[in-house]
Amino acid sequence: MTALKKLGEREVIRRLAALLPSRPDVRAGIGHDVAVVAGNRAYDFLLKSDAVVEGRHFLPTTPPRQIGHKALGRVLSDLAAAGGEPLWALVNLVTPRGEKMSRLRAIYQGLATLARRHGLAIVGGDTTEGPALELHVFAVGRLPRGTALLRSGARPGDVVFVTDTLGGSLAGKHLRFIPRLAEGRWLRAGDWATATIDLSDGLATDLDHILEMSRVGAKIFTEKIPIAKAVFRLRPARRDYGGQVQGFEKTNSLFSKPWKKRSPLAHALGDGEDFELLFTVPCCQAVALEQAWRKKFRTRLTAIGVITRGAGKIVWLKNGTPLTLHAAGFEHFR
Amino acid sequence: MTALKKLGEREVIRRLAALLPSRPDVRAGIGHDVAVVAGNRAYDFLLKSDAVVEGRHFLPTTPPRQIGHKALGRVLSDLAAAGGEPLWALVNLVTPRGEKMSRLRAIYQGLATLARRHGLAIVGGDTTEGPALELHVFAVGRLPRGTALLRSGARPGDVVFVTDTLGGSLAGKHLRFIPRLAEGRWLRAGDWATATIDLSDGLATDLDHILEMSRVGAKIFTEKIPIAKAVFRLRPARRDYGGQVQGFEKTNSLFSKPWKKRSPLAHALGDGEDFELLFTVPCCQAVALEQAWRKKFRTRLTAIGVITRGAGKIVWLKNGTPLTLHAAGFEHFR
Repeated sequence: MTALKKLGEREVIRRLAALLPSRPDVRAGIGHDVAVVAGNRAYDFLLKSDAVVEGRHFLPTTPPRQIGHKALGRVLSDLAAAGGEPLWALVNLVTPRGEKMSRLRAIYQGLATLARRHGLAIVGGDTTEGPALELHVFAVGRLPRGTALLRSGARPGDVVFVTDTLGGSLAGKHLRFIPRLAEGRWLRAGDWATATIDLSDGLATDLDHILEMSRVGAKIFTEKIPIAKAVFRLRPARRDYGGQVQGFEKTNSLFSKPWKKRSPLAHALGDGEDFELLFTVPCCQAVALEQAWRKKFRTRLTAIGVITRGAGKIVWLKNGTPLTLHAAGFEHFR
Repeated sequence: MTALKKLGEREVIRRLAALLPSRPDVRAGIGHDVAVVAGNRAYDFLLKSDAVVEGRHFLPTTPPRQIGHKALGRVLSDLAAAGGEPLWALVNLVTPRGEKMSRLRAIYQGLATLARRHGLAIVGGDTTEGPALELHVFAVGRLPRGTALLRSGARPGDVVFVTDTLGGSLAGKHLRFIPRLAEGRWLRAGDWATATIDLSDGLATDLDHILEMSRVGAKIFTEKIPIAKAVFRLRPARRDYGGQVQGFEKTNSLFSKPWKKRSPLAHALGDGEDFELLFTVPCCQAVALEQAWRKKFRTRLTAIGVITRGAGKIVWLKNGTPLTLHAAGFEHFR
């Protein structure tokens, strides 16, 4: 009779996933950022669902349009990481019956604005009464057959890149982020990336997902990690010292634990909800990628490390000296 | 500042749906039982999501395998009504962190057993902490292009059919029902039905959905409605009298209102969660359908009425005498 909080989210998912049936037309199932299924001769389809829950992913005071933006943006960010084109979505709404219609309307306006911007149709869903406001978004995307970017293709020697800046998303970015759909499709079309993921749980955890699925390790130069200004604005910056990152502990919710006692680096590694792309590129193409990227996009791109052979092992370096990190980023239930 | 409870579910959905963007490849969107989208030259895809919430669709005492069965069965029932073949599903789980792993495992075993029986792969989903246990299932189905059975094709003169028996599902059927996938595909392949729906909200409400989308009316012979034995087993049968069905009122939840003071007919019309098929067939094919059905299926099939011109109007007859019904079946928020 084990309670979930003792197992943690990854173990819960692992145990439940083991029970579930597959089909021969499933190219990538549970364990990947998105599911990839064979649609027809020309295209594969991407399937992705995600949820936002009041008190965890947004608050009663959050501007409602941003709630809708975040609910849809989260799944679009996963389609982006795979290199897909969004097509259709369904939205399940759970709401207390006392909720105001004006708030729901603004939430759906936020959803609709983002959907329209990316050519996505919202074609259905379900409404149910429940104790807390929740939005569950299910999205279908498409890409040319066999071209989906997954977590599983990183190889030793590949360079690790990240878009824009990381950390401090709670200051606002977690509600206003831009899903990197254009960048993801460009990476896929140019066959640049060997593995991709979107940063939802924090760099430390999400990098670990790539390493696990690709069966490789990584060496990360922490002084290269682009730290968001929001991290410094919100509190006095604290210096890392003694090879130890301060206050880098597991968190249970964006809203349940204080941010204090964390260094800027710890924020960048562990805050989560950056919704930037993390991806790997063969080292011989890294320079060409950076040049081509800068011609195409204004989005910042930074090389932060390299893939190594040491399966599952991350070496965090600060100006050449190894750092000890206590734990990974965001994980539910714990 | 209108609260949802003053508007009712249908009005809430109508207002929110008006905000949402579509695409040219959407053949049927919000307002239909399932969304139908153009997949490729040969096939259309069906998209459907639904949710079950503890305290509303199941209880803490419900056998957990049946919770999983119900969560998936609900969406399969909608794919069945459209005549589709289930392919892939995603499952969003919301759970309190104190939940027992053993209960979740049994819920997922219920899901997996039903999925396996119908060749469906469960390819992903999301887990989130929340105040109540919920399962949101998103399913994708397929059928030959342009053949989806919808709510919108009923024509005056068509005969109204229903499968099996109705009412009293709370006695157990709402957890153990069989999605009528084989029947739905057979109806679609044989081009028998002009409109279909699965009975989730009760015959009165769901028939109304067909009438609304088809812009027709109906005359229903209530003495023909096949009433489930569960209705009689659970309480002393009450007789309808004076052309008035007793206690036929709106309910807010399967579990929130007492069942007492309802006639058997009121149960059959309003209980909901029967998950049988309601469909219309051109009158010249009705006899042939019944013969072909009996050769193919053991599932009971009953003609209960005819479609009329009077848009949106249902005439309920009991042995030729009109009955007055106070209100329709199950609707959320009110």
